[in-house]
This record gives sequence, C-alpha cells and structure tokens, in this order.
Amino acid sequence: MSDTQTPPTNRKTAKAQGERRGLVIINTGHGKGKTTAALGLMMRAHGRGLKTRLFQFIKHEGAKFGEHRALNDLGVPFAGLGDGFSWRSQDLERSKELAREGWREAKEAVLSGDYDLVVLDEVTYPVSWGWFDVDEVVETLRTRPRNVHVVLTGRDAHPKLVEVADTVTEMRKIKHAFDADVPAQRGIEH
Amino acid sequence: MSDTQTPPTNRKTAKAQGERRGLVIINTGHGKGKTTAALGLMMRAHGRGLKTRLFQFIKHEGAKFGEHRALNDLGVPFAGLGDGFSWRSQDLERSKELAREGWREAKEAVLSGDYDLVVLDEVTYPVSWGWFDVDEVVETLRTRPRNVHVVLTGRDAHPKLVEVADTVTEMRKIKHAFDADVPAQRGIEH
Repeated sequence: MSDTQTPPTNRKTAKAQGERRGLVIINTGHGKGKTTAALGLMMRAHGRGLKTRLFQFIKHEGAKFGEHRALNDLGVPFAGLGDGFSWRSQDLERSKELAREGWREAKEAVLSGDYDLVVLDEVTYPVSWGWFDVDEVVETLRTRPRNVHVVLTGRDAHPKLVEVADTVTEMRKIKHAFDADVPAQRGIEH
Repeated sequence: MSDTQTPPTNRKTAKAQGERRGLVIINTGHGKGKTTAALGLMMRAHGRGLKTRLFQFIKHEGAKFGEHRALNDLGVPFAGLGDGFSWRSQDLERSKELAREGWREAKEAVLSGDYDLVVLDEVTYPVSWGWFDVDEVVETLRTRPRNVHVVLTGRDAHPKLVEVADTVTEMRKIKHAFDADVPAQRGIEH
C-alpha cells in the first residue's frame, strides 16, 4: 500500500544532514513538463528573492510568447528569443554558431556567480548533436560557484550530464491529448 | 537511434485535426516537478492573457512562500495558504473539513467558467484519502465549460482521474539530491 493512501498525521520532516549549496537539476524524458517545471522553479526562486536567468537553446516559432511575457512582468532576465536558431532552421551552420554563442553566454552567467539560478532550457539537444562539448558543460557545472543552482532541460540527457547532476527527473508520457487529435492549446502548450 | 541525436532540418509541425478546447492535465508520479510544472503552465497561460487560479490542497509549513509571492506579483489569484490543513495536522477532522471546503470552492471555480485555467495542486491526496468523492471530481471535470483547462497534481492519481484526463505525465525520480544528504534548498525546493 502506498504511503499516499492514508493521511499522515505525525510525519516527521526529513532533514538530511548536509550543506546548503547550489544544485544541478535535470528535467528530462519524453513527457510534458520539463520546461514548465523549470519556469515554476524560476518563479519560486524569484519569489524568494533569488536572482534567476533563463537561456533557451531551441527557438519554437511563435511559441514561448506567454512565458516570456510573464518573465518580463516579473523582471526576470531571459535570452534566446529571436536569436534565430530553430527546429526548423534551414541553415544548420548558422544554427550551430548561434547555439555555441548561446552556450558561451550561459557558461559565463553560470561561472560569474551573478545568478542564484540559471536555467539552460532544452540544452540537451545541442549537446546531443555535438554542437558544443559535453565535457565543457560538465566542467562548467563542476567548477561553478558553490551557491549557483543550474537547471537543464530536454529529452535524452547525456549520461555525463546525469552523472554530474544532483537531481534528475524523467517526465514520462502516460497519456497525451495530442494522441486523441486534440491540437496544441495556446497558453498551455506554448 | 533517438530522434534527438541529429538536428532536425525540415521537421513538419504536427497538426492534429481536432478542436480548440480546455484540457484536463495531470502531473503525477513520485519525482520532482509536479507542482512547479503547474506553476510554469500558469505563468505561460497568464502571459497569454488567460485567467488562472490556483488551489492548494496541502499546506506545507513555511513553504510555498516563493511561489505565492511571484503569483502575487503577477496578479494571479490563489487559495490554500493559511487554511490550516497540513501534512502534520494533529486534527484530522478539521483538516478533512477544510479540504472539503477547498474542494467546494475549487469546484465552483471550475464550473463557473470564470477562469481559463484552474490548478488543483496536490488534490490527489484528499481524493486518495476519501476526503471527497472521486466521482464528484470526475463529474465536475466532465461537465465543466468546454474552454476551461484544469491541472491536477499529486502522487498516485486515482485511475478514474487518469481516465478522464487528456494529458497525464508521470514525474519519475531518476536521482535526487536528498538521497545524497543534500538538504532542501530554499527557493528551489520550496
């Protein structure tokens, strides 16, 4: 029987005896919620007064409008919008160069210690495609200032990324509206 | 070979031939990201001009501060803070009554059509505990105005909830910092 079947009345708060430090968090898997969970974390961190920054490594045309506006309203900096690299780009060399440029900026932001939380949204893809070196990403995570949290999202996270991470969650699709011919809903899917 | 191993250059946007309508979305499983993904969706929806509302069915002491402040900054209404029902409540009857009251309000919000997106955060628990009737929740979802999106979160979603949902994602723990004695980090875990 699962522990959620009866209401806990006297549950002790588990307290690990470790240090306060930045975490490397990966949201991977083929289900929904990888990017939205990162956005939710940004919201929570921002509400706690932490300084957050978002880099988006894949541009989806016309999408991301809602989240960018909300981030804007909160005064949270983000980069990646309008940078031109896209799933549907016809110019791979250009896309690759832009992704590398994005990575250089993101790396600088992570290493600077200027942010408490840096989100590298959909960064697993350019890593999988070899557009920039997974070892450099790992090295950046390993040598970052201790207080910095980094969230990485995207399908099929590289094993070396999983290894260096503190927390890895797989978002698994159990059921998706799309399979039942329901189209993407504005404000929900993008 | 996975489709994420090579960059897509000419990927067609899949378009399901269905209608525009509200979705029932469930984030379940024992991993991280269920609530944060719901918060991220709220952010996205809010940025698109949709009207959203959050009900939280479990109160975690001292937690949720960050997300409430961010929602507040965005002008997004939420309920559940300070309502007194808690994982650690010693008064089960009181907790049960408050959960039922919360459900009545949430049901009204869903059925009213006043909101485009209603989030029922951690609602799976009181349902599993039999504090309110799963069939009433299902009936509410089935008879809601067509445009209303509802997100339900929590572990071990009841099979009847999964059945009525359009999209169900299981957040699976692959690795968690907690297991390595790293304590919960403020602004990240809560």
